[in-house]
Amino acid sequence: MRALTFQRVTFTMGLPLLKRAIQEQAEKTKNFISRSLVIGEVLSTADMATGVKCGIIYWLFGGAIRNLGSPGHVTKWLQPLQEQKYSGMFAMTERGHGSNVRGIQTEATFDLSAQEFVINTPCENAEKMYIGNAMYGNYAAVFAQLIINGRSQGPHCFIVPVRDEDGNLYPGVTAIDMMYKEGLHGVDNGILIFDKVRIPRENLLDKFGSVTPEGQYHSRIKNKSARFNAMLAALTPSRLAVTFQAMGAMKLGLTIAIRYSHSRRQFGPKAKEEVKIIEHQTQTLRLMPHLATALALTFASRYAGVLLDEDVFHGKELVDSRPLQALVAGLKAYSTWENIRCLQDCRECTGGMGYMMENRISGLKCDTDVFVTFEGDNVVLLQVVVRELLAQYTKQYEERPITSLLQSWAESGGDKLRTSFLAFNMDTVGNLTFLLKAVNFRERVLQRSLVARIHYKVMTKKEDFFSAWNSCLHHVASLSLAHIHRVTLEQFSLAVRRCPDQEDQALLMKFCLLYGTRLVFQERAWYLEHKYLTPRASMRIRTQGRC
Amino acid sequence: MRALTFQRVTFTMGLPLLKRAIQEQAEKTKNFISRSLVIGEVLSTADMATGVKCGIIYWLFGGAIRNLGSPGHVTKWLQPLQEQKYSGMFAMTERGHGSNVRGIQTEATFDLSAQEFVINTPCENAEKMYIGNAMYGNYAAVFAQLIINGRSQGPHCFIVPVRDEDGNLYPGVTAIDMMYKEGLHGVDNGILIFDKVRIPRENLLDKFGSVTPEGQYHSRIKNKSARFNAMLAALTPSRLAVTFQAMGAMKLGLTIAIRYSHSRRQFGPKAKEEVKIIEHQTQTLRLMPHLATALALTFASRYAGVLLDEDVFHGKELVDSRPLQALVAGLKAYSTWENIRCLQDCRECTGGMGYMMENRISGLKCDTDVFVTFEGDNVVLLQVVVRELLAQYTKQYEERPITSLLQSWAESGGDKLRTSFLAFNMDTVGNLTFLLKAVNFRERVLQRSLVARIHYKVMTKKEDFFSAWNSCLHHVASLSLAHIHRVTLEQFSLAVRRCPDQEDQALLMKFCLLYGTRLVFQERAWYLEHKYLTPRASMRIRTQGRC
Repeated sequence: MRALTFQRVTFTMGLPLLKRAIQEQAEKTKNFISRSLVIGEVLSTADMATGVKCGIIYWLFGGAIRNLGSPGHVTKWLQPLQEQKYSGMFAMTERGHGSNVRGIQTEATFDLSAQEFVINTPCENAEKMYIGNAMYGNYAAVFAQLIINGRSQGPHCFIVPVRDEDGNLYPGVTAIDMMYKEGLHGVDNGILIFDKVRIPRENLLDKFGSVTPEGQYHSRIKNKSARFNAMLAALTPSRLAVTFQAMGAMKLGLTIAIRYSHSRRQFGPKAKEEVKIIEHQTQTLRLMPHLATALALTFASRYAGVLLDEDVFHGKELVDSRPLQALVAGLKAYSTWENIRCLQDCRECTGGMGYMMENRISGLKCDTDVFVTFEGDNVVLLQVVVRELLAQYTKQYEERPITSLLQSWAESGGDKLRTSFLAFNMDTVGNLTFLLKAVNFRERVLQRSLVARIHYKVMTKKEDFFSAWNSCLHHVASLSLAHIHRVTLEQFSLAVRRCPDQEDQALLMKFCLLYGTRLVFQERAWYLEHKYLTPRASMRIRTQGRC
Repeated sequence: MRALTFQRVTFTMGLPLLKRAIQEQAEKTKNFISRSLVIGEVLSTADMATGVKCGIIYWLFGGAIRNLGSPGHVTKWLQPLQEQKYSGMFAMTERGHGSNVRGIQTEATFDLSAQEFVINTPCENAEKMYIGNAMYGNYAAVFAQLIINGRSQGPHCFIVPVRDEDGNLYPGVTAIDMMYKEGLHGVDNGILIFDKVRIPRENLLDKFGSVTPEGQYHSRIKNKSARFNAMLAALTPSRLAVTFQAMGAMKLGLTIAIRYSHSRRQFGPKAKEEVKIIEHQTQTLRLMPHLATALALTFASRYAGVLLDEDVFHGKELVDSRPLQALVAGLKAYSTWENIRCLQDCRECTGGMGYMMENRISGLKCDTDVFVTFEGDNVVLLQVVVRELLAQYTKQYEERPITSLLQSWAESGGDKLRTSFLAFNMDTVGNLTFLLKAVNFRERVLQRSLVARIHYKVMTKKEDFFSAWNSCLHHVASLSLAHIHRVTLEQFSLAVRRCPDQEDQALLMKFCLLYGTRLVFQERAWYLEHKYLTPRASMRIRTQGRC
């Protein structure tokens, strides 16, 4: 499988369309991000392992060079990568630190006399783990604590040679095969260990922090934590790529399951032909909301792609686009979870056929299952969303970000919220305006109450921030998803409005309403608790979701 | 993998404990069902493919002989099976009929002059599919339409020789390897095609219908459909075995995930040691309800095992135990779905480690995913539950079962329901009595309203029964699960009461409350809609579920 995937990657990246996309990435041509995201989606539906492996080499490794390196790095490293002279990997995660990556322990110590960095794995917990392409790749973009004169400047990214053209490991590098996983059998994940591996000073990707020949460290971002955030932010496009890959899987799974449901017959009226299983009420109820969600996600994630393209085109640093950070983090979590649920229903709705690998759904399931924890664990990403949402309001209080923010939030909002209450009657629950207001209301109430809770815990009860935050984690996750739901429904409704073809528009509108109804339906207990819905309106939404 | 699994099956079935269990099955010793269910659970945690393959040979094939055959069949076939002289398979599902098995098309035509049955696959849709052990097994228990003088007596089960001791297929039998599945790689599933294969008359398992040498058909059940129901009912124990296997998977997955969560550290208060991930609020909230459910299912399924044992011990036909049929069908659906959700959370809560096969969770996921559709698709089983629930009330109206039943149901109930309303106050929502009443209320309201809806559709609107039923399928599924939830919570609470150790009892009580709270919490929208809960009480349940 791995050799086959390797061949497929080589073949794919040699295709004119993909060569052009890669070239566009290097040149930062207008809208290059959106274009390559879509290519990534299509590629993933052809073969997920190939899509993921291309992602590792060109999005993650290539992206690290493009977004964390200098123009010199791009010239030196990107051209031969595009020509497939070598391949790369992305080495951030360690055994001891997967989610909390700022705690990584791999060291890059500057040796002034040799003008080199010494890359070293000081302990078992510092081993680079789950590294894709670890058994084939030539170079790794390794994240390590940059140490100068015994002092760490926080994590930075370095290009480290791993093996030569013939595949022989360089001295000091150990690569251990991690072998069998649930899926993505074509992707070779491994452990990387560095024993005092020396690399030239130039191999530091130094866009956010550089070291002079004299051993002086320079960075325009003074705060270590803010600096690392800027680096992580620069990698945002590759996080969005996962959303597109998940959508590819959803759409393919749904196509297979819905088509099968239109051909398979089982049960029926006495002494008559059996009916198509799509006509079984439960079958439609299980599959159609997923289709609506897949459409909604398509528009929301394309919107995120457009925003990314605009920022990059205008030379804006992604770390300064906090709402976009929140959107991309949230979309990744939301889309990958929806994908799991969708494929599980596709698999179950196709019975035994769905369990057979040849029918693809179970393979897609196994391959994409890792999406919910890689490139940022979903629960962690939901927290990123909320932190970014908070940060949007707090830029002016750089000194004491949390407390000032809490203060300002706790004071505001009340009035604005009240005016948003909708005095709707029974006829409006199926109305898109109602649905949009409802998801908006939920986001803002959750936001305001979260701020109030944390404020109380931190300011009044004097709890430390971590434990206050931790005791609100469920609330944080709810707010985060509520935010993404709201944006996604908004983008879906805008897409419907913009649709040029009337017939398509009418069909899209149906799915948009189904999607919005689903969102409100799922949380109708919350709406009832907050008296936003009456029991009668809630029951009506239930009925509505059924047709 | 298959060869290894084959060895494991041979080894396992040679163990004294298992030999004794099989011997007890043959002799119908008291409580033999409960004992072998537990053995099946333990075996499945050791290796799921071995558990499933043993299940196919000894529960399904062996069970067909024990439960559908005569004492003569048991003597002739079971002894050599126990001694592993040969192995068997169970061939019911066909390409064209998986869920609606009474529509199978394989034919068993009686040839009077030869005193043989001719087993034949008349078309592609009649091919036996997904048959486990199809690439190794010697004999198959084949379900086919019994045809005498051109007239079908409905599906019956026949012992058909497939291959000799050396593994060579007999003439007229084709076995096609179905190859790769999502999991259970050690189980060889295949397609079986019969081209006019002749078997002796004695190979008809004739407990529910026999053919004399003169070609006379005899059965004490005159109605074809009722007869097939009796046969299916006799196979109930093997359906319950799936529940035990799913529970084994849940418990193993939870053990791994919870232990890991107590050793893995990530994030923490500033400048302090990172905390164990089990201390992250979301981690506990995701894992603990599954543990509570696993415990609840343990008691409910053991209860079902005891009832089965009692019936079998008293020589009662299982078809006459309708509540037990409903319970076993419902438990299979409920437990296998809970298992999928549980293992998915276990996998996600263990991050990248959970995706590695060596840590077992992902393997368990893939292996047990098929449980939700095999041995009865879960959605179909939920319908079985409701049909059985209806049938309990309708025994006295044998002539016109549906309409009379509907009449009687629609008339009754109202008063009884009202008295069950609980005038609870805020202090009681955490009370087990409250939780039990709540799940009880939900079941009865759903039951009454379903009957009323179907009654209206069939009697007033004159819809045919199939389409009336189909348009209520979501309602049927809700009622079905509500029934199983109620029984499960009741059994959990009884088990707590009976627990001999005080400390264990206190701990079990916590999980019992968590389980009940979870049930009500999940459906709190419904309770709010039906004004069984006030918004304040609902919010309180939400908070309660969080600690």
